[in-house]
Order: sequence, then C-alpha cells, then structure tokens
Amino acid sequence: MIAVLKPNTTEKQLESLTAWLKAQNLDVHISKGHFQTVIGLIGDVAKVDADLLESLEMVESVKRISEPFKSANRKFHPDDTVVDLGSTSVGGSAFAIMAGPCSIESEEQLTDIAEKVKASGATVLRGGAFKPRTSPYDFQGLKNEGIELLLKAKKATGLPVVTEIMSPSHLDMFNDVDILQVGARNMQNFELLKELGKTKKPILLKRGLSATIKEFLMSAEYIMAGGNTNVILCERGIRSYDTYTRNVLDLSAVPVLYELTHLPVIVDPSHATGVARLVRPMALAAAACGAHGLMIEVHNDPINALCDGAQSLTPEQFDRVVKDVKKVIEVTR
Amino acid sequence: MIAVLKPNTTEKQLESLTAWLKAQNLDVHISKGHFQTVIGLIGDVAKVDADLLESLEMVESVKRISEPFKSANRKFHPDDTVVDLGSTSVGGSAFAIMAGPCSIESEEQLTDIAEKVKASGATVLRGGAFKPRTSPYDFQGLKNEGIELLLKAKKATGLPVVTEIMSPSHLDMFNDVDILQVGARNMQNFELLKELGKTKKPILLKRGLSATIKEFLMSAEYIMAGGNTNVILCERGIRSYDTYTRNVLDLSAVPVLYELTHLPVIVDPSHATGVARLVRPMALAAAACGAHGLMIEVHNDPINALCDGAQSLTPEQFDRVVKDVKKVIEVTR
Amino acid sequence: MIAVLKPNTTEKQLESLTAWLKAQNLDVHISKGHFQTVIGLIGDVAKVDADLLESLEMVESVKRISEPFKSANRKFHPDDTVVDLGSTSVGGSAFAIMAGPCSIESEEQLTDIAEKVKASGATVLRGGAFKPRTSPYDFQGLKNEGIELLLKAKKATGLPVVTEIMSPSHLDMFNDVDILQVGARNMQNFELLKELGKTKKPILLKRGLSATIKEFLMSAEYIMAGGNTNVILCERGIRSYDTYTRNVLDLSAVPVLYELTHLPVIVDPSHATGVARLVRPMALAAAACGAHGLMIEVHNDPINALCDGAQSLTPEQFDRVVKDVKKVIEVTR
Amino acid sequence: MIAVLKPNTTEKQLESLTAWLKAQNLDVHISKGHFQTVIGLIGDVAKVDADLLESLEMVESVKRISEPFKSANRKFHPDDTVVDLGSTSVGGSAFAIMAGPCSIESEEQLTDIAEKVKASGATVLRGGAFKPRTSPYDFQGLKNEGIELLLKAKKATGLPVVTEIMSPSHLDMFNDVDILQVGARNMQNFELLKELGKTKKPILLKRGLSATIKEFLMSAEYIMAGGNTNVILCERGIRSYDTYTRNVLDLSAVPVLYELTHLPVIVDPSHATGVARLVRPMALAAAACGAHGLMIEVHNDPINALCDGAQSLTPEQFDRVVKDVKKVIEVTR
Repeated sequence: MIAVLKPNTTEKQLESLTAWLKAQNLDVHISKGHFQTVIGLIGDVAKVDADLLESLEMVESVKRISEPFKSANRKFHPDDTVVDLGSTSVGGSAFAIMAGPCSIESEEQLTDIAEKVKASGATVLRGGAFKPRTSPYDFQGLKNEGIELLLKAKKATGLPVVTEIMSPSHLDMFNDVDILQVGARNMQNFELLKELGKTKKPILLKRGLSATIKEFLMSAEYIMAGGNTNVILCERGIRSYDTYTRNVLDLSAVPVLYELTHLPVIVDPSHATGVARLVRPMALAAAACGAHGLMIEVHNDPINALCDGAQSLTPEQFDRVVKDVKKVIEVTR
Repeated sequence: MIAVLKPNTTEKQLESLTAWLKAQNLDVHISKGHFQTVIGLIGDVAKVDADLLESLEMVESVKRISEPFKSANRKFHPDDTVVDLGSTSVGGSAFAIMAGPCSIESEEQLTDIAEKVKASGATVLRGGAFKPRTSPYDFQGLKNEGIELLLKAKKATGLPVVTEIMSPSHLDMFNDVDILQVGARNMQNFELLKELGKTKKPILLKRGLSATIKEFLMSAEYIMAGGNTNVILCERGIRSYDTYTRNVLDLSAVPVLYELTHLPVIVDPSHATGVARLVRPMALAAAACGAHGLMIEVHNDPINALCDGAQSLTPEQFDRVVKDVKKVIEVTR
Repeated sequence: MIAVLKPNTTEKQLESLTAWLKAQNLDVHISKGHFQTVIGLIGDVAKVDADLLESLEMVESVKRISEPFKSANRKFHPDDTVVDLGSTSVGGSAFAIMAGPCSIESEEQLTDIAEKVKASGATVLRGGAFKPRTSPYDFQGLKNEGIELLLKAKKATGLPVVTEIMSPSHLDMFNDVDILQVGARNMQNFELLKELGKTKKPILLKRGLSATIKEFLMSAEYIMAGGNTNVILCERGIRSYDTYTRNVLDLSAVPVLYELTHLPVIVDPSHATGVARLVRPMALAAAACGAHGLMIEVHNDPINALCDGAQSLTPEQFDRVVKDVKKVIEVTR
Repeated sequence: MIAVLKPNTTEKQLESLTAWLKAQNLDVHISKGHFQTVIGLIGDVAKVDADLLESLEMVESVKRISEPFKSANRKFHPDDTVVDLGSTSVGGSAFAIMAGPCSIESEEQLTDIAEKVKASGATVLRGGAFKPRTSPYDFQGLKNEGIELLLKAKKATGLPVVTEIMSPSHLDMFNDVDILQVGARNMQNFELLKELGKTKKPILLKRGLSATIKEFLMSAEYIMAGGNTNVILCERGIRSYDTYTRNVLDLSAVPVLYELTHLPVIVDPSHATGVARLVRPMALAAAACGAHGLMIEVHNDPINALCDGAQSLTPEQFDRVVKDVKKVIEVTR
C-alpha cells in the first residue's frame, strides 16, 4: 500500500503519521521526491483502512498495490478451478449449458422442458423454486414443492440441477440440489454467503446489479473464506441508463475475470437482456469471448409462463442456439 | 395498463391477443388510430406481466398507468406517516437526527459519543453491531455484544437506538432495539424484508446502491404488505462513475419521494460521500430540500475508528453541523 | 402519443386540456376507464413537448407511441443500408474491417501499418489526424499534415480511409477522405452533424459516452435530415462505474440497433476496453452477435505510440484476430 | 507518477523498463518491497501515457500523484476566481442568480420576463438563442434574431446576459453577450473550447452528461490554456438509471469542486430535474451546500413555451424561490 502526501506536509506531521502506522505493525518506507513524499507500507496491509488513511489532511491519495481477494486470485492459483458435478463439470475446458424455466410450475412442465433441453445438449437443469420478485404481489415461486419437482426432473433425466437459495434458513431443503444459486440481489447478502461457505456445495454466484468486478470477487471470497472453493461466477447484466434492454450485458467482464480469477465464469443472456430475441446473439457473443458456459431460460409455453416469459426461448429455439454456440466454440478455442 | 400495437398488426392477431387478455379476466378496450391501435386493459392489471406482453411480436410497447406500490403510495394515504419512538418520532413535522459511531467498539466509546450527540440535539443513537463489509477479512462488528452495549447506552441516555440487522435469524437479539436498519446491500433481500414485515418494529430501509425510486418503494412495500407500516426510507447515495466521492447523493430523490409516498425520508450524508469534510454541506442541503431527518456518523477518535473513520465527524464538528441544520430548517419550512 | 390523466381530474380541466391540444392541430380521443382517463393524440405529435404535457398537474404520465427517428427507422426502410466506398462497402452482408493507428505519426509508420493490415484483410484504413484528447497538454494530432499522409497511404494501398473531423471549418481538408468520423464526444455536436448532413460523404458516427440508443439514432437523424443517408453507426463502449476496463462495451446494442434501424453498425473493441489483450475476445464477440464490421487499432510499435498505445495490437496480433473473426462470421451467418 | 510492478518481474525487464523511462527524460526511483517493486517517476510526467505504461506486461498498476489540471487547480491558485461582469460578478462571496426563459421567443416575452426576474433579484439574464435539441425536428431557437432580442433586453434592464454558443463560427454574433455558455453536450467539443480560450469572454461551462469531475476540470483547462481564465462551472445533473427526474443533480460536486478549483461553481436545478416542482427544493439545497450561484428557467407562460416549459417557473414562483434562497445563504455562510 502506498500513500502520497500533500506537498506542504511538515516533518512533524510525517513523524506522527509514521508512528501511527508503525503502531499498526506496518513497515514504513519513506521516499521523498522533489515535490512529493510517498510512503510505502509493508506488512498486513489488508487490515489498513485505505479510506481513513486517505481522509487524513496530510494525505493526497492512497493506492493498494495488491488485490484484496486472495482465495479467488489467479495469481496464487494459476490453474482453472473445475467444479465437479459428477456426470459433468463447470470450468476449465468444459462448456456448461444450464437451461430450464425461470419458474418451476408443474411436474409436466418441468420434466417436458428438462427432457428437451437435455436432448439439445444442456448439461445442467435450471428451475426457480424461490423467486426474488421486485413486487411482493408477484408470484413468489412454488418454494419447497418446486424443489421436489426439480429433484424429480433430476431423477428422470440424470441432469444435475441448479436453483436459487434466498435464505440460510432454507438450506435443509437444498440437500440434493447440485448447485445453489445466489441471485444478483443477494450478491452482498453476507450472512447468506457465509453460511454457504460452510457447505461444500457448488455455488453459482450472480453478479450484483451494479457490482464492480472487485466487489463481485470479494463476494466469492466470502464463500471461499469459509472453506468452500466450488464457486461459479455468473455475469448477468449490469444496471445502465438505457431502456431498450433490461440491463447491459458486460461481456468484457468475461476475459477480465479470466485474468483475475481461476473460478469459472458463465453468462446469462436471458436475464441480462430480458428479451428472447436477443438471447441467441448474446449467447454466441458470450461463447466467442471465452465464457465457460451459459445459463438460458427455456419454456415450453413462454406466453403463458408465470414469470419472465418475455425472455424465454422455446425448446426449438434453444436447440438452434446450442448448435450455433457449439460451432462458435469450435472455431474460437 | 396500455398496450400499443405495431402498425402492421392483422385483425386475426388482434382477436387472438384480445382473447388471451380476456382469459386473464381483464376488460379490453380497443382504440384504433390512423396509424396505430392502442389497447386499454382494466381489471387486476397488477398481475399482468408487462415484459411478456411487450415481448409479443405484434406489441410495440406497454405502459402501466398506475404505480405498483399501494401501501406506500401517497395517493391512497395522503397524510404523512409518523413513526412513533416513544420519546421522539420520525416523519411529519419532526426532524430526526440519528447519530453515533459506524461500529460499536466499547462501552466507554459508545456512551461517551451517545452523551455528546444527545447534548448536541441527536434524537436517535446509531451504532453498528453487525457490519456488512465488502471484504470477509474486514472487522465484522461486535455482533450481540455490540447490541448489549447499545442497549446500555440507550439506558444511560434515554435515546432510542437504531442498528442494522443482517439476517432474520438474528431477530431475537433485536427485541429492545427501537429501529431496525436494513442496509443498502440488503434492500432486496426479500426474505429479510418479509420477516421484518411480520414485526411491528420501526424499520429504517436504506436505498440500494443502484435501486430506482420505484424499486426502493417496492422494497418498502414488501415490509408493509406484511402489516408493518413503520417504515422510514433513507437516501444514502447511489452508484455512479465518478471517484471523488464514494457515491452520488441523490438529493432530488427527497422531494420526489415526498410526492410519491407518505413515508418519512431521511438522508445519510456520511455514507453517501465517504468523506467527513463533505458531511456538513450535504447535511445542510438535505435539510434545505425537505428531508425528514439525517443520519450522521460521529466518532470520538475518527483516526482510530475500526470502521469508516474517514467519514466520521468529531462530536465538536457534529455539534456545529446540527446548529446550522436547525437554522436551515427554520428558514425553509 | 398517449396522456394518462390523474384520477381526480375534473371535467373542466379535461375540457381546458382538450382545447389546448386541439389548438395545436391535434386530434384528441378521450377514453374513460373505471379509474383513469386516457387521452390519445393523433396528428403531428412529433412537435408536442411530452415533458411539458407530463408536467401539467392533471397529467399522470405521457407516452410516445412512435419513435422520433424517421429516416433511420427500419420500419419505414426495411432494407439494410449499404454504404458504398467504391472498392468495398459497409453494411448488408459485407463485413468491414477498419484498422490502423490511433494517431498518424509519420509516412513510414502509416504506410507500413497500412500495407500490413491490408494484407491481413482490412477493408478500410483508419488513422487519427485530429485527436480529441481529454487534456489540452496531450498530443493533438498532426492535423492537416496527418490527412496528407493518410491520403498518401490510401494511394499506396488502394484502401479507402476514415479519419475524425472535429469542426465544420475543417471540411475542406477532408475532400479526399472516404469516411468522416464523428467521435463520441461530438455525437451531440449538432452544428457539426448538420454540416455533415449537407455533404454526401459517408459518416462514421460513434456513440456518445452515455448516449441512449434513442439519442444515438437521433444524432444519425440529424445527419440524415440534411439529405445524407450514408451513416455508419459505431458502438464503442459506454460509461460505467467499473474501472477494470475504460468503458463497458454494450454489445447487445448491436442486435437492438439491427432491429431499430437499417443503418450498418460496427464495433470498436479497442476504444471500448482500452486494453490490447481484450481486443481479440471482444472482436470475436462483436462478430458473433451480428456487427457489420470492426474498427481496430493497430500499431507497429505500440510501446512508443504517441497515443493510446495501450490498446493497440501489433500487425501480427491483428492478423490472428482477423482470421478468427472470419471463422466466427462463417459459422454464425 | 508511480508504477507498481508485478511480483514475477525479472531484473532484465526492470532494466529495460528503466531505460525506456529514462529515455523520456524522467528520473526513476526504484523501491523494492518484500513482495513488489514500485517505481517512482519524477520529471515532466504529464507527458507520460499512464494507460500505455499500465498495459505493459510487467506493470501491475500506475497512479498519477498529481492532478493533470494546472490552471484550474486551487493548489496553485488558492484564492477564489471572481468573474467580473461590470455591474455584478460571479464567484467569491457574491451569489449569482441567472434567470430567464429556456428559449427566446419574442421581444415582449423576453423583456417582460427580464424585468420581472430583475425585480426579484436576478443578477444575470439568461435566454437561449441557439438551442441544442436531441431531435432535428424540434425548435432550434431564433438564432441571431434571438441574440438581438437578448441584447435589447440587456439594454432595457441593465442586466448582463448569458446565452449558449454552439459553434466557433458564430463567435461574431456574441460580441456584446456578457457570458458565453457551453452546453453539456459540447463540454468536450475541444475545437469550440480552444476558440473560446482565445477570447477574454466569461465562459459558463456546463458539466457533460456523464463527465467525471476531472474531465469537467480538464475542459475548463482547455479554455484556460488559451489564456482565458474567466471560466464559471455549472453542475446541471448527470446521467443515471432512474427515470423520475431527467438527470441526477450531483450536489456533492459543489463542495468537491470548491476544494479542487478556484473557479466559481453554479447549479442549474431546472435542467437537472426537468420538473418545475423540484426547482425550489434543489435550489435551496444548492445554496445550502455552497454553490456560488444558480441558473433557473423562468417563463411567463410555461404551458405555451416553445421549449422545456415543463421545468420553467413562473415569475411569481421564481420570486419566492429567490427569497428563500437568500435566507438559506444568510444562515449558512
């Protein structure tokens, strides 16, 4: 960590600052330039409050020279993390395709979709049982009944399943779920992250609506700090000022995350755009820029879906998207 | 709700759409213009999925003509909500001043600050026991021990207290806390909101980092839908692209919320700016544009604070700010 | 255009509003619902000030039901615009590759790069002569001397050339330039757009740093309203809150624009990301989601470039990117 | 300027980097820590391309330790700039109130408004002659005829006048205009800024829609670098994701700019919010947080204004706002 002092800092101020920093068990290296003095801090700087330091009258600016995420950092773990799901995996050279309905509505609906997406090449079945809806008056999901239906579909098709968990108190219901999803709105629900860190379950962590890449990785770090390294990141669009799409899909986050972390990164073009017609182009783009997989909403009857029908593909559309995605992967990797 | 159809919509498409809408128990009024056909929907339109409707090929755009928040809406509840705290209240003509340290560190620290802010005019004591930190390696608060210290300070000073709750499973510890704060990162932690809706406790709901005003009110609605109408809103800065301040304090949200809702709206200039020097000007501005109160961080020793010292005022600075705020209120209301 | 009135609007207010609207030569259709009254306006609504209408006390909200861009609108011009450049073209089924240095530095530099990018498949040579720099103290380009060097390189290689124009007063210097680029910072420099509308020159219009898609198309409309329909749109990243990349490349704008307009849309991954390592993945993604072309910075000696070396590819890197882009196009179109 | 090297940098790489930097006439100070090596650069670092340096494989990050704006920097010019307008001034302890119609429509309209706002305490008359409109089909202003009407109103009332200039080629028409306004869309129209820098005219520079504070100051620097130090900054709202107000008024920019620069900073609540009802609260807030003045739209007949009537106050409303603003100034300064 480096602190740059203001030009008019006195010797006395410098001494007092140095003393204060040393009291925090830091090594302090002072480098005086023609115009400015720079202080280098060595030691357990993760514990230093950079904002506080920067707020001191004599300090011009502060810069951390190492990222605050350790477990997720590719620097210390150069090899790709591969999350094992038994019959399939996420990360490394595998390309994961998670597909299914936004909301689980009935056994027939889910099993029908599950068989179709499996036939088209999906590797994981998704389906919402607990639904985080902006309005308390909207359909909130079938909850534990939905999870039971999801497990039936898992049994019927052999596909591992992913579904969202919204509270640590629900953990018991998720014993047989293969991947626990943390939604964008809960990306910084730290109590939930901590509890998930105590399990060994694969976690699919969605990026918050306006989370920076660093905050996104720090939330992964919350899970990993508890001992659970099975974290899959999911870019799903960030908040912006335009209204033609629901969010702006930040695809450059994919190669940026690839450099910063060893965790797999998948992309959800359905939630990002909110528009079924845009799923195909953005799925192809995600595959082209190096994503480790996709999460796509598929519904057998989008117009009568209880939730987010606007962004769901039909199984036939999904089939064509998967075919094209595979071609893109073939020519770009 | 109004749906505008595309110019080339056929009669057959229109009939099919009308049939589908009527099947949802909606009255359908068709108005054909020279160039476009507009469909008006009447009935329980809150249940209509506007995104789905808009995604239909024949539909150009959809517009809700009533806000989806009912309980929080000033239209149906024209009088200001006043949240009663016994010795004081929040909302209406009262001006609330919530002050105290970001984190509770010790009994001496807290009681010392509590007495000082009370002497300066604070009406509520704030203090963090559970701290949502971006990094799992940062100080996470004294937790239940912190709450005990807060209750001691309450007893010593008579000030009602506000502190953040991060999980429904902690509710038991908060029995004697006067106001339960929901932090910005949990604004859409719907499981938490639902549980708080079942209590009668006053809730201080902070605006999410990139929450729209509508989403903010819908989160209040989650609490109110459970029967708890004691909700206080808090504007605390929204995410932006500039780096000179931590967030952008969206002060025009104050008069906008005043029009839309009967709930009290307070402002937190400390978290919004992250810089102690900016607290005074932004506190005065908040008072000038009609806020029902302020939440300000005060620390007796900011430079050694365990959390957010950079944005804390000393008790002396706080005293001067309160004096000036009161003058502004006097001349503007 | 539709205006929704507030529930408590009186008959007298309604009459007065109707009279005012009719005085503006509009047909007024009133539709009274159970709870709300909706007014439909027909006629030359492009001239109605929607903001003003919405500000009236009795008006709840206003919605335009037709886009304000006419010339750029695909609805009225379903076929793709193809901009003819003699030896090549932009739009339709062609895939344009514009490449070259950020700044023109010398004849050798430019001709060397031009020959190399041509050999790799570039269809247009780019090179900056007038440079819009954030700081007045940064290198501002070789100006007219730069344009002369660009025209020499055009002659030597036969490639059409594109370069940025910053002021209408410079137009004379651009007689032999094939495509005139309007930079992001000048997207709403309407005086410049109007002057370019009077020429027949192909214009490459870059999206403003925080321009909505509608504003982007309205700026194209400024050029087209003058009679010049040779407009190429360029997505080059929008402002966001993250700092890992310079901007967020909004790739979903590509398929959205494809629906809204008949104009060609190309993508500039170099300026969007600001990082050479990210150019390849984002160029592939742009090709995958349907862009009509790419604009890529190439420099023979990035480390000593006078401008934006950080985002420039070497000719060798560029060659590999073009090869991969072509494969993606082959499998996705 | 400081560059932090990656941990695995070799001695040879370090030497090569050092040689390259010294070749640019920079002093290089190397400081090796336990984990990382930091290079301090001294000399004319304003010319160093920080992005390029950061893009080098061995470089982890780069930080400028001094702001790139020199002329606008309060560090080097601690005293407030006061822009002299003859009968009045902007900056320092004066509080400027610029008021008038968005667009100049006729002599009667303008003179009537001018006399009324003067009577209420306005110190400068504003009125748009050249109007930057998003749509080419919207009213573009009376242009030179508008300026003539403005000068008549100046003569009649004695108020100095401010109006927007959109192109350097129009400069001749602005000889008798007291303050030349650069609109938000032209904040980075560098050719315009350079031409204005050659005049001695007071310039009112509006902040761009998504300009950072640094970019805003760099645009002021463009004008000042030409020798014209009469620059007034104007905060007028920045782009955000919410739709209740047109933009988000970034009031904390006011005290931040006060620290960074000696130039006066005024606030335009009319354009920021786009809603007349919000002008009063935001004008009071601007006064409370230290602005040097306000720019407010006033129209004698808002409902029939040719432009932006939605945000215009009537003269009576303006009168009350001024009275309240003055009270706020009295108690806060």
